[in-house]
Amino acid sequence: MKKLINNPESVVTEALEGVAAAHPSLSVDVANKVITRAAGPRAGKVGLVSGGGSGHEPLHGGFVGYGMLDAACPGEVFTSPVPDQMLIATKAVDGGAGVLHVVKNYTGDVLNFQMAAELAGDEGIEVASVVTNDDVAVQDSLYTAGRRGTGATVFVEKIAGALAEEGADLAAVAAVAREVNDRSRSFGVALSSCVVPAAGKPTFELGDAEVELGIGIHGEPGRSRAALTSASELAAVALDAISADISVDGDLLVMVNGMGGTPLIELYLLFSEVRTYLEGRGGRVARNLVGNYITSLEMQGFSVTVCRLTDALTRLWDAPVDTPALRWGR
Amino acid sequence: MKKLINNPESVVTEALEGVAAAHPSLSVDVANKVITRAAGPRAGKVGLVSGGGSGHEPLHGGFVGYGMLDAACPGEVFTSPVPDQMLIATKAVDGGAGVLHVVKNYTGDVLNFQMAAELAGDEGIEVASVVTNDDVAVQDSLYTAGRRGTGATVFVEKIAGALAEEGADLAAVAAVAREVNDRSRSFGVALSSCVVPAAGKPTFELGDAEVELGIGIHGEPGRSRAALTSASELAAVALDAISADISVDGDLLVMVNGMGGTPLIELYLLFSEVRTYLEGRGGRVARNLVGNYITSLEMQGFSVTVCRLTDALTRLWDAPVDTPALRWGR
Repeated sequence: MKKLINNPESVVTEALEGVAAAHPSLSVDVANKVITRAAGPRAGKVGLVSGGGSGHEPLHGGFVGYGMLDAACPGEVFTSPVPDQMLIATKAVDGGAGVLHVVKNYTGDVLNFQMAAELAGDEGIEVASVVTNDDVAVQDSLYTAGRRGTGATVFVEKIAGALAEEGADLAAVAAVAREVNDRSRSFGVALSSCVVPAAGKPTFELGDAEVELGIGIHGEPGRSRAALTSASELAAVALDAISADISVDGDLLVMVNGMGGTPLIELYLLFSEVRTYLEGRGGRVARNLVGNYITSLEMQGFSVTVCRLTDALTRLWDAPVDTPALRWGR
Repeated sequence: MKKLINNPESVVTEALEGVAAAHPSLSVDVANKVITRAAGPRAGKVGLVSGGGSGHEPLHGGFVGYGMLDAACPGEVFTSPVPDQMLIATKAVDGGAGVLHVVKNYTGDVLNFQMAAELAGDEGIEVASVVTNDDVAVQDSLYTAGRRGTGATVFVEKIAGALAEEGADLAAVAAVAREVNDRSRSFGVALSSCVVPAAGKPTFELGDAEVELGIGIHGEPGRSRAALTSASELAAVALDAISADISVDGDLLVMVNGMGGTPLIELYLLFSEVRTYLEGRGGRVARNLVGNYITSLEMQGFSVTVCRLTDALTRLWDAPVDTPALRWGR
């Protein structure tokens, strides 16, 4: 495998040292693998905690900061963090108004966050959980019962984070997080596999002219193999799947996300195709993200996430955010 | 080749359609391949124009906006834009105070920007040019007389852009641009090649356990081939080359840049190594960028750029910036 690492066992820890060195706005507990805002919790504000396996950067650590998450717990690569980490994070961000756990629907994450919520409850911290499950590709997958949680997680963290920053209570913050997830759908396509450092070999094999349609963010299988075709046709495959499940008319928030190894020039080209498709179905791309937001190590490919906006959600999306990977308007 | 494109000939144009759709803050003349601020020029402000071959995104179009560039001219992939493009951009951003051309040292870019400057002069627009040449890897290269211009270009565009925004005159803006370039050095390492769409095959071949040391941003050869080794040792190779050419003590602005196909987790890990190295030489990483800022399509690898800060340069670096790819503090 060709990677910029020292040792497959210490990749996450060493990368966290880099995160700590790069971002004075973050406080990084490298030993426990917990990233929080350096400013600490704000009394009376609902705390937002997310987490999951590493290898999806900037998710989640890159989204810790004003207007978004209060803490992130990175697990080992493609491996759920443990309840102890989540408990440390939950306690660290508790400002007395309760804590929301944003959990991608993968069996390990869901179970571990559930246990952490119970442990936090035992210590008197009120915890609500929202499980994202926006990926329409497969009903059950290698690592999930039900749909996988992918790109919508970014939208949930941003919008719920904005509402929490405004001082809304835990029930309201949890409700808007669920609303965003309910209104969002995703679909991913892989052009190449990725290599988990500890495994040292590609997670799966793809032919020179093949793509995997409906790929998960850990390289788990999607719907089918297909021949590599044009960006226009691949955009249509993704959006056909999404629009079979949710109406794509009206104002939309759309993310064209790179899986880690796809150059930005291709993502912009694809975004143009996505927009053309959606406009043809009565959609208006009112807000967008184009870039690497939820990745799968060095995988080449993309995912598209579509969220049906309301005026209230648009306002929260536009609210100031100041994190390493998402920053505007403060 | 595995790319998210429709047609190798129309990649740049179609990507520009996506840039236009994604960023309402930009005005994109797709036919002429010129990206400007939608707000137009500000009377009395020095205009900043840069450009070069496409395939290095977000450079340069992603740096058009408040506090940085006024316009960017993307050429075809790895191909200089033409003087006509540069002239259109120069005229579009002229606010009566003259225009600075920021040019990476590649023979085609230098000649074409020179011609554009002369044409603009004929039309009564005062133009100054700054050529970046920060790459210490090779003295002359496949495409240059003298050193190549790489990562320092990002620093030059940010810092000169900040000074222009404050209303400094053309001579002062050009002087600070030259100062940043003079105080900056870069070195890149490739773990894989990249595929130019029109070529359809890798620019060069690397063995499974080989890296290219001192790679250019177009896949042109560096200093030597070497065996793939640890992130720590690769960071040392890059910084040994840089520190052989410039002192790395004192306050530094440091960029650990991905070449397009390197995941962020590896860049953070590498940044930690870079910081450790520099601290061992009396340097302090006062400011940093970690991510994809000047890329080579889907190439795996990294470059390190080090700039020796002064208080004045730090202040300009910290000044507000609001572009698609760099945004803070406004």
